[in-house]
Amino acid sequence: MTDRQAGAAALLVANETFYRAFVARDIAQMESLWSASAFVGCIHPGWSALRGREPVIASWRSILGSGQSPRVVCANPTAHMLGDAGFVLCEERVGPAVLIATNVFSLERGVWKMVHHHAAPVAQDTFVVVPGSEGEESSLN
Amino acid sequence: MTDRQAGAAALLVANETFYRAFVARDIAQMESLWSASAFVGCIHPGWSALRGREPVIASWRSILGSGQSPRVVCANPTAHMLGDAGFVLCEERVGPAVLIATNVFSLERGVWKMVHHHAAPVAQDTFVVVPGSEGEESSLN
Repeated sequence: MTDRQAGAAALLVANETFYRAFVARDIAQMESLWSASAFVGCIHPGWSALRGREPVIASWRSILGSGQSPRVVCANPTAHMLGDAGFVLCEERVGPAVLIATNVFSLERGVWKMVHHHAAPVAQDTFVVVPGSEGEESSLN
Repeated sequence: MTDRQAGAAALLVANETFYRAFVARDIAQMESLWSASAFVGCIHPGWSALRGREPVIASWRSILGSGQSPRVVCANPTAHMLGDAGFVLCEERVGPAVLIATNVFSLERGVWKMVHHHAAPVAQDTFVVVPGSEGEESSLN
């Protein structure tokens, strides 16, 4: 395994940690995962952007603390390295609904920390396959 | 101006280049902006993820070549550096509609190249201000 492959594997583990904390409503784990030193941002489905650790963590406390946060299952994640940063693209399945997410991480002292989350619903009725994308899309199934 | 500030300023210029190419339907400029060496991804509003340069560029050729692509105005961009990577959060205004975008870039031989674009509508009726976010949100106005 190359360093790059090992990095991508660790990035996927960090992504899994995010969804485990989400499903378990583990606020401490969620807070620990998000970077405390870099800028952080978060775009919940249908929301505008939250910028900065305070509103981002407050939103997670509100969501996870409500006892009504959805059971989100992460599917088909792919990890993409950019030096000491990286991002994961994945589906979020909530019952029959499918959302798509961009999760950005930063490597801080050897640990991947979340710096940005952006999730949005996939509109089934407007799903478009463009020329050349068939092979890529089928990998999502 | 620090190196970091200069980097963030250059990142905002790359982000502007994206929206200029979008509005001008300049396919050559759009193709040039997207990285040709790194993994690239793209999530158009309501779409699932396109993964890889071929489907991403094909989608832009289709959108910009249709002659019906929307006039997108970028508003309130903020740039966030992650070493030789970075991301921009911004609004996209299309007439009365407001979308929110995450644009990820990678520094390649001194030039910021786009590696990921994720845009999604902001649902005005579900807009939620969480505790602690008021100050952050007002900066979007």
